[in-house]
Amino acid sequence: MKQSEWELIRALQRRARPVPGVRVGIGDDAAVLAGTARHDWVVTTDLLVENVHFLRQAQPARALGYRALARSLSDIAAMAAVPRYALVALAVPPELATSWAREFFAGLLGLARRHKVALAGGDLSAAERIIADVQVLGIVEKGQAVARHGARPGEQIFVSGALGASRLGLEVIRAGLSSVWPPLKRAVRAHLYPQPRLRLARALRRRFPLTAMIDVSDGLSTDLDHLCQASGVGAVIYAAQIPAVRLPLPIARRLSVSGLELALHGGEDYELLFTLPASAARRLKALRRRAATHLPARLAGVRLHHIGHVVRGRKIMLVDAQGRARQLFPGGWDHFARTKRAR
Amino acid sequence: MKQSEWELIRALQRRARPVPGVRVGIGDDAAVLAGTARHDWVVTTDLLVENVHFLRQAQPARALGYRALARSLSDIAAMAAVPRYALVALAVPPELATSWAREFFAGLLGLARRHKVALAGGDLSAAERIIADVQVLGIVEKGQAVARHGARPGEQIFVSGALGASRLGLEVIRAGLSSVWPPLKRAVRAHLYPQPRLRLARALRRRFPLTAMIDVSDGLSTDLDHLCQASGVGAVIYAAQIPAVRLPLPIARRLSVSGLELALHGGEDYELLFTLPASAARRLKALRRRAATHLPARLAGVRLHHIGHVVRGRKIMLVDAQGRARQLFPGGWDHFARTKRAR
Repeated sequence: MKQSEWELIRALQRRARPVPGVRVGIGDDAAVLAGTARHDWVVTTDLLVENVHFLRQAQPARALGYRALARSLSDIAAMAAVPRYALVALAVPPELATSWAREFFAGLLGLARRHKVALAGGDLSAAERIIADVQVLGIVEKGQAVARHGARPGEQIFVSGALGASRLGLEVIRAGLSSVWPPLKRAVRAHLYPQPRLRLARALRRRFPLTAMIDVSDGLSTDLDHLCQASGVGAVIYAAQIPAVRLPLPIARRLSVSGLELALHGGEDYELLFTLPASAARRLKALRRRAATHLPARLAGVRLHHIGHVVRGRKIMLVDAQGRARQLFPGGWDHFARTKRAR
Repeated sequence: MKQSEWELIRALQRRARPVPGVRVGIGDDAAVLAGTARHDWVVTTDLLVENVHFLRQAQPARALGYRALARSLSDIAAMAAVPRYALVALAVPPELATSWAREFFAGLLGLARRHKVALAGGDLSAAERIIADVQVLGIVEKGQAVARHGARPGEQIFVSGALGASRLGLEVIRAGLSSVWPPLKRAVRAHLYPQPRLRLARALRRRFPLTAMIDVSDGLSTDLDHLCQASGVGAVIYAAQIPAVRLPLPIARRLSVSGLELALHGGEDYELLFTLPASAARRLKALRRRAATHLPARLAGVRLHHIGHVVRGRKIMLVDAQGRARQLFPGGWDHFARTKRAR
């Protein structure tokens, strides 16, 4: 994996020794802080920088505002917490001025309303490039936040929804392809307006003993690696079971990429990746109509895919449709290593 | 005053209607959120952008890390709250890489330790310019946070410490002046390592019925205007009573600026500006050794200066040493209006 970002995070973890009140600290999707007698606080911050995380012309202001909040809400979902308050730091180039910022906030506030999140404050300034940093504070029942580090060998690995659509949408926008064709339209929408899996995460937490969870923001290969590293385990996943976006052949040729590649390394899907003990995994897989045994399980309106299992060691192996296994390396988004390819 | 930033904040205030749990929302130094039965949570976010808020070559990484946290701690101080946790979003140009970031965090963590603030999490990425956004979560006794909006006509206005030193330090750095001479050295230090007035704010809160408080981050003229606007009042302040940084004449000539101008419009002093009823103001002014009636009051090791009083209306008047009054307009830092002059 690309080491630079992780090395720095680890150096900080060493320096920031355990502090009373910090239940889960640096290195997870969000920090978990001791709150009231019955609840913990969950806090997350996510930075969006123009030309690094997005291109201005590929992203209407409204979509950007939506996505800036959606990213943080997804982090809250990954802890199985409930979001409450948001703070927004926004820097806007002078040539864009306030009308752009109004659109940005319209997108952000629309999503906030849907999830009953209150905009509690923020900070506005100017900059040469658009910068948005959104913090979300949420709550979770005391000791019940789901961290990344609890996966154990023998447990089963699941992922929600479909993977790769967001990246496909981005490629469609960048290639200037028409998106009137429904599959491409859906992909563009998945990129611009991803749905944080808040309801699903809470439903999962209520019904299943989740041992580890993370949101797929950097791509399955990278985020599974994060989960495995935090848990000190390896994994075996099966290509045929990964819910990869379906890619029309002409588009696959034009972009010279496969649906599986987009699913493994695309990122920004904001789906949930989680692990369960075997018995709970069987219960989860039974969550479907009896007649529909060929379909994946569903919860809170979202499909749940059993993609593999946790093993000893540190390697992640990908088994292809022919049963051949090869080691999977994180090919997702490492911010320090891939700056040049602005998304 | 420069309207653009305030117009946007007001538009957002209108859209973000009162929400249960948000005691003080958009437009104050920090948001106050309902926490436990005995405490409220105080949350703030502050964005530092290269070429907007600082110049890379004028600011060692360690000082920048320090200052990124100091700004947010100062917001927490302005609410008379106690900081607990910090989250840091940092974007670093690839050419600076991790050694720069380590220095940044060394500065930040040093200040955090001094105030018993735990680094609870963050977000790292790359960008063309350095971006640091620091959030701090603190606590305050229920209903006891000091907002900006409580000042009433007849009350007295105080400011802590000295004003203008930070801006003088910045000008010294920018002009490439030697800073071995003690007054200039102190000014450079005031700019690079400002001290958030946390201990002072708590001591004030315990002993005096503060009606409004704000930290001087944009300059006295701008921050007094913010306080007056929020409270719906005006003010009269006296030039001779403003604790302006002392400016050696050759430096004043070279920079063509006076100590009073730096004090009024310089900004980034992170001192406290607050209001008190007249009786409490008398008590506060008595906080000095009996023999030292010519010196200002002191609390928590910091001087407190009585600079004027609150009046009806909306105007802020500055009375000069000859007793002439003129209207004072916010000449401090409006991010939307003064982008070109990167500090």
